[in-house]
Amino acid sequence: MLHNRISLISMMFLLFLAAVSIWADEGMWPLYDLGKLPLGSLRMRGLTLNQEQIYTPKGGGIADAVIEVGAGSGSFISSNGLIITNHHVAFQAIQQQSRVDKNYIRDGFYAASFDQELPAVGYYAHVTLSMEDVTAKVKAVLKDKMSDIERYKAVEKITKKIIKDAEKGRDVECEVSKMFGGMQYILYNYLKIKDVRIVYVPPYAIGNFGGDIDNWIWPRHTGDFSFLRAYVSPDGSTADYSTENVPYHPEIYFPISSQGIKEGDFTMIMGFPGYTDRYASSYDLDNLINHEYPLDIRTYEDELAIFNEAGARDSSVAIRLAETVSGINNTLKNSYGMMEGFKKADILNTKRTTEQQLTRFLEENPELLKEYGGVLPQLDSLHREKRLTQDRDFALEHLRYGSDFYYMAYRIYRWASEKEKPDIERDPDYQNRDSASTHETLENMQINLVPETDKKILKYFLKKALDLPPDQKIATLENIFSGKQGDERDQLIDRFLDSLYTHTAIGNLEKRLTMFNMPLKQLENLNDPLLGFAKALKPDMDAMRERGKRFSGAENRLTPKLIAAYTEWKKGNLYPDANGSMRFNYGFIKGYNPRDAVRYNWLTGLNGVMEKETGKDPFIVPQELKQAHLTRDFGSYIDPSINDIPVDFLSTNDGTGGNSGSPCLNGKGEIIGLVFDGNYESISMDYLFNPNIVRSIQVDIRYVLFLIDRVYHLDALRKELTIH
Amino acid sequence: MLHNRISLISMMFLLFLAAVSIWADEGMWPLYDLGKLPLGSLRMRGLTLNQEQIYTPKGGGIADAVIEVGAGSGSFISSNGLIITNHHVAFQAIQQQSRVDKNYIRDGFYAASFDQELPAVGYYAHVTLSMEDVTAKVKAVLKDKMSDIERYKAVEKITKKIIKDAEKGRDVECEVSKMFGGMQYILYNYLKIKDVRIVYVPPYAIGNFGGDIDNWIWPRHTGDFSFLRAYVSPDGSTADYSTENVPYHPEIYFPISSQGIKEGDFTMIMGFPGYTDRYASSYDLDNLINHEYPLDIRTYEDELAIFNEAGARDSSVAIRLAETVSGINNTLKNSYGMMEGFKKADILNTKRTTEQQLTRFLEENPELLKEYGGVLPQLDSLHREKRLTQDRDFALEHLRYGSDFYYMAYRIYRWASEKEKPDIERDPDYQNRDSASTHETLENMQINLVPETDKKILKYFLKKALDLPPDQKIATLENIFSGKQGDERDQLIDRFLDSLYTHTAIGNLEKRLTMFNMPLKQLENLNDPLLGFAKALKPDMDAMRERGKRFSGAENRLTPKLIAAYTEWKKGNLYPDANGSMRFNYGFIKGYNPRDAVRYNWLTGLNGVMEKETGKDPFIVPQELKQAHLTRDFGSYIDPSINDIPVDFLSTNDGTGGNSGSPCLNGKGEIIGLVFDGNYESISMDYLFNPNIVRSIQVDIRYVLFLIDRVYHLDALRKELTIH
Repeated sequence: MLHNRISLISMMFLLFLAAVSIWADEGMWPLYDLGKLPLGSLRMRGLTLNQEQIYTPKGGGIADAVIEVGAGSGSFISSNGLIITNHHVAFQAIQQQSRVDKNYIRDGFYAASFDQELPAVGYYAHVTLSMEDVTAKVKAVLKDKMSDIERYKAVEKITKKIIKDAEKGRDVECEVSKMFGGMQYILYNYLKIKDVRIVYVPPYAIGNFGGDIDNWIWPRHTGDFSFLRAYVSPDGSTADYSTENVPYHPEIYFPISSQGIKEGDFTMIMGFPGYTDRYASSYDLDNLINHEYPLDIRTYEDELAIFNEAGARDSSVAIRLAETVSGINNTLKNSYGMMEGFKKADILNTKRTTEQQLTRFLEENPELLKEYGGVLPQLDSLHREKRLTQDRDFALEHLRYGSDFYYMAYRIYRWASEKEKPDIERDPDYQNRDSASTHETLENMQINLVPETDKKILKYFLKKALDLPPDQKIATLENIFSGKQGDERDQLIDRFLDSLYTHTAIGNLEKRLTMFNMPLKQLENLNDPLLGFAKALKPDMDAMRERGKRFSGAENRLTPKLIAAYTEWKKGNLYPDANGSMRFNYGFIKGYNPRDAVRYNWLTGLNGVMEKETGKDPFIVPQELKQAHLTRDFGSYIDPSINDIPVDFLSTNDGTGGNSGSPCLNGKGEIIGLVFDGNYESISMDYLFNPNIVRSIQVDIRYVLFLIDRVYHLDALRKELTIH
Repeated sequence: MLHNRISLISMMFLLFLAAVSIWADEGMWPLYDLGKLPLGSLRMRGLTLNQEQIYTPKGGGIADAVIEVGAGSGSFISSNGLIITNHHVAFQAIQQQSRVDKNYIRDGFYAASFDQELPAVGYYAHVTLSMEDVTAKVKAVLKDKMSDIERYKAVEKITKKIIKDAEKGRDVECEVSKMFGGMQYILYNYLKIKDVRIVYVPPYAIGNFGGDIDNWIWPRHTGDFSFLRAYVSPDGSTADYSTENVPYHPEIYFPISSQGIKEGDFTMIMGFPGYTDRYASSYDLDNLINHEYPLDIRTYEDELAIFNEAGARDSSVAIRLAETVSGINNTLKNSYGMMEGFKKADILNTKRTTEQQLTRFLEENPELLKEYGGVLPQLDSLHREKRLTQDRDFALEHLRYGSDFYYMAYRIYRWASEKEKPDIERDPDYQNRDSASTHETLENMQINLVPETDKKILKYFLKKALDLPPDQKIATLENIFSGKQGDERDQLIDRFLDSLYTHTAIGNLEKRLTMFNMPLKQLENLNDPLLGFAKALKPDMDAMRERGKRFSGAENRLTPKLIAAYTEWKKGNLYPDANGSMRFNYGFIKGYNPRDAVRYNWLTGLNGVMEKETGKDPFIVPQELKQAHLTRDFGSYIDPSINDIPVDFLSTNDGTGGNSGSPCLNGKGEIIGLVFDGNYESISMDYLFNPNIVRSIQVDIRYVLFLIDRVYHLDALRKELTIH
């Protein structure tokens, strides 16, 4: 009997393990929710830390060493504020410092001592100091009978107040993160380090090996890493760049593991994933799949054609457009992957089935039905309503963001308009606290301005806007180009744009920055035609934003209810969608089968780098690396499973954009790699997670060590690391 | 001591095995050379047959069931002459029978009884009756002091005589195959079965699944099989199609294995591989890699652009050009793969190193040096000489074959010219025995003629010929278009071609076939302008052929010596290059690693078919197959290693074009699959064999059985098979 009981218990235990692993190997969890994870069973699967060693509000968990940096994530790896992140996260910093005679982009950059480090202009490091649940404060201002727009504005107002109160008199930057579409609100307090410097960036041929071609694709061979350093003023407070500043001393920083990894090993990732929408309704997905993505793809393809044509005619233009073109290519590849993923996973029907099951569940529970039964139909009509103005809103959005010139005029005019109001009443992004970053944006845009190409882009979007269906026309534009068709309209648009671009001063950096500081009246008196065009379109833009706010207010009303219904049905802990706040997730090192009869190994090697070499960007192999490959000067960095220098590896970790640069940790909390991409087959996981196919792509830290030790001999850098 | 001795013997034995497997898993061996293979050790690796059971001159070996059919290979699988081969080998037969109202291409075709079988027009089945070494007869007419052209002509003459003598009064077709570049000559006697009929062809969506996109590519999901039947006259002699004919009764035919296969299993392939050149000198390869392939690729790309443009403007033209376009695509993909393979395997330097080693070996053996030392330098100067006229020869070759109209005129005019000579003195292909097949070619070409497009092709090649370097100009063309340049020349060419195409009768089927039967005088009196153009170019074409013959004569003198030198050096049995004669080779079922971190499984499955489905050609899945997939009505055909219906599999067998349709056999001599392709990564193996990467692609016979049994229920066909 005893024997049987043991068997039964073992079996139940195994079942429990299996259930846990199916359920919980998914999700990007807020740090304060770690308790919802099966940490006990994870310790049997490779985790050696307890919850407090990962994160505790008191401080001292390894999560404290994870930071937001640039547009990605990073982590501290020395007591002197040394940061490791991706090459592509640090790229703009090195681009900004690169000159014709000092081609740091191509050659890489290394500061062998503190005083040689260069400022990473425009880079900040956000260190999470604390997080606080402010749901009650937000909910206190909401009433059931509020209209959707009232609801939106009430949330916006209280959020701004919470932030203002929290930032008052403290060296912090605050943010209120909406969780579960508004079920919960969390106040994050960050230390915003403003003096970030470049320590080491590898040659472009290593840091961007594979480029756009390999982007999102496994097998990958990119050395996507860089080293930065955080500086603060001598008194420890944050400060702008100054030679007086001293390295920041984080209390917690990560050691690095040189011990190697193998398939099946436990992994953890912490970082700042940007956006997922896994609770999206089928109505939302229907619109995304059948309308928004196809329209986006067409638009980006058209833009790309304009940029490519301009670049083909003039190589100096090509250089200035390179970053934009690369960005569009990245977005397009992502969108293609998204569409393929939607189709392959039959994501719309899957969601519809789930919703039908949810509805059946509610119907079997009259009280729940009463509470939640109306949510899905209401989401349906909400999205039907959205469709009525969607094409117009899309056109206005793209008018606003498509052309650099128009965008700057729009931003400056709106800034002056918002400034007329008291700070607390302004739209977010237009408060005094946003002044410095807006100024910086308006300044940095100068570097890539190409007026002739920009004019073509604006023309493209104007024509798209004029071609809207009759019931979605934009009144202002119809008035300007009234009744003209075909070639005649074309000529009118050309004359209009020629005049705008000839007479506007917005392309002049100095004048633009002066405009940015002007009060509305003075700005209007300039009679700048592009500012005038922005003013003319303001009512349409305002109306679009207002529609967006009303829609947001409605979602804020409905989504928490939908998620509450799911929680009732699933009886499990759910995780909130990614929203740019810090998250924890775990997984295992694992290859995958992308398609029938094809198996991807979990690890790539230096041989693969050599295989891909063409001698042309993005497949150049630097001489030093070739030499090391030839002589097999691999030291202890060789991976026995491939008998080669490890380059990149896969794990089953959940993640999304914003996670770039996140440390990938072993069960002891040592860095084994840096997240830098997800695999193509799982791009659509932002909407549906599939554990068989979702993989996070990391650069293996042994590749980093091999490069700085054996290939480039960066002794000072290597000595600063804590290598286990 | 005894113990030690056993160990030593075991070890030696293992070493022997290893050595054998490195050495001999390569090569397409003539059947009479089976004795050179390590059959003893192969019996330990899975072979259960002895040499006589595979092939014996007395007859009765399984090789007797292997035939040449269409442009590929096939085998007998019933006592009633049932043949199994590839869909793409039988394709032209089904195309010829397809009508708008009977779309056999799209829907497939099945004859449930003998009387429903349709003629496979233009198809022959060649059954190898015997082979005889005629080296002595050929060598008897050769003298050391002969010039190269004399040597060529002497070989041609004696070969024709041997064939004539052998065919005289017998129901056979004969061929003399040159082995090792002329070291050996083998007379093959074939029974040429002229009445071949279509029994079953699957729908195009199965037989051509993946089309040009998947061509050469693994993983593959093509059901590339068809069933034909051989008929002879009631007295057993070969005869043209007649309702009086009866099924041919082969003495040997293959059973089919439904027992399944697994990785590592022994495999044998017999068929008619067309062409390899593994003893090519580095001078030859240099020219191929740096001149011929790049020029070919450019030319085919240009031709393709012309065809595609024509097809885009008129879909009926597109249909008529489809086969040509598909052929060019296939050639181009092959050429790209060839170039990639040349580069990846660094084939030129590899060969140069080998030749340096050979030279060193000869230098260490003065007697051998005396005998063979001059061979490589002589091959070098031979290829230097070839380069002097190579561009002109290339232009002439393409003039001849590029345009259908010109080709037909060329062929008819030359036929009439050759007919002036006694039969035995004519060029091969222009003897009386070639009359029927030439007539057939001239007839069949009618179906795909597109005069307007053909004119563009001829213009393209004319311009190319006129653009030849000054020292390689073609005198006849220079005279016609003398001194004209640019637009002026263009207009002259247009006028010239307009006149040719307007006034020639060559495009008229009836008139063309009448021309074919005319004596030279009568033909010339027609004053057909295209025949006139062919006549004008005849001296240039004759000179080109003469240069080719001289080059061939020189190769015939040098290559056997080169191979003899290799034989001395390697002290091993060498196999002759593929040349269209029947060959045997063996291998093992095995996946491979195409590149770093990617593993290809040896077997694909029905799931993979569904994964690739797009609903558009070439990725359509017929409804019946979808249904069987959905209901998993798999019977016993499921493969346990993938828990799915097996579709295609890989083996390490050597092979090349012409092997298509060959039976792939297990160690017992039962059919387990049909060869239909090689993998992209090994295309360059025609010049260098690499056992790590060379794979033959087979359709799994279980997929064939599943389709005829579970999906299409072809009971009569299934019952005719001997299934083990």
